Amino acid sequence: MIDSPLSNDGADIKKVAESTGFFSQEEVDCVAELWQDYLEKGAAGSGYYFLVDRQDSKLRGFACFGPRALTEGTYDLFWIAVDKAFQGQGVGKALMHEAEQEIKRLGGRLVIVETSGQPKYEPTRAFYHAAGYTHEATLKNFYHEGDDLVIFTRKL
Amino acid sequence: MIDSPLSNDGADIKKVAESTGFFSQEEVDCVAELWQDYLEKGAAGSGYYFLVDRQDSKLRGFACFGPRALTEGTYDLFWIAVDKAFQGQGVGKALMHEAEQEIKRLGGRLVIVETSGQPKYEPTRAFYHAAGYTHEATLKNFYHEGDDLVIFTRKL
Repeated sequence: MIDSPLSNDGADIKKVAESTGFFSQEEVDCVAELWQDYLEKGAAGSGYYFLVDRQDSKLRGFACFGPRALTEGTYDLFWIAVDKAFQGQGVGKALMHEAEQEIKRLGGRLVIVETSGQPKYEPTRAFYHAAGYTHEATLKNFYHEGDDLVIFTRKL
Repeated sequence: MIDSPLSNDGADIKKVAESTGFFSQEEVDCVAELWQDYLEKGAAGSGYYFLVDRQDSKLRGFACFGPRALTEGTYDLFWIAVDKAFQGQGVGKALMHEAEQEIKRLGGRLVIVETSGQPKYEPTRAFYHAAGYTHEATLKNFYHEGDDLVIFTRKL
């Protein structure tokens, strides 16, 4: 079931991010920072909205998104991650759907997701594609030399 | 002459941003927020680096840039603005050059500038183009419906 997170979900959220094997330590630390900001200021105050998927009290995945500054209704989907043990069961798809519904309720009209162009992230790109996202732009050598930024968008 | 700002330059920086006529009130307020963050935490701590152009104690323009999180050597040039009374005199070009030199000193290798695709910003886009920037991507309807994000990059 997808719901807002509890205030003590931080450690599990970090564990899920680590379990995927897709995020560097720096990126996992970044999730922890956004979570801290969310705890301190709330979703509207921090600009970071979280949703979690929980089954039998086990946190299986989470999504984090928020409004892009200086835009009207454009939202970044910063993170969507599913515990390695629960992948391939539709958890990511359900989180994506619920995140989009929440973004719509908040007045959002455009969702942006950014990922890497490296071969390793092909499953990630396929996931966004299957979810109705369009590969709209590429910034070459963005993350580092040879590692492009790939930007997907979806109009809600 | 281009130099680091003084701690009491905040009001003049805001005035320069307002004078251009290119920035909304929300955007001018955003400059003020970045400046406040810079004052409190310093450039490295805040991630916002400022440079100012001053002549006979008059602040004629400023630039603000910083490293993009989770990248190696990619810098955003957030703002470059010249007081309306001093435009067309090469101040922007000199600020751009000095910002790029500083970014190089900091280990930067790629600069990203974002602007609007609206006709009003054609001079801005022409300025980046003349400075050696390449129009690398467009995100349609990013700012609001009918107002695209245009992304320029330059490899240093």
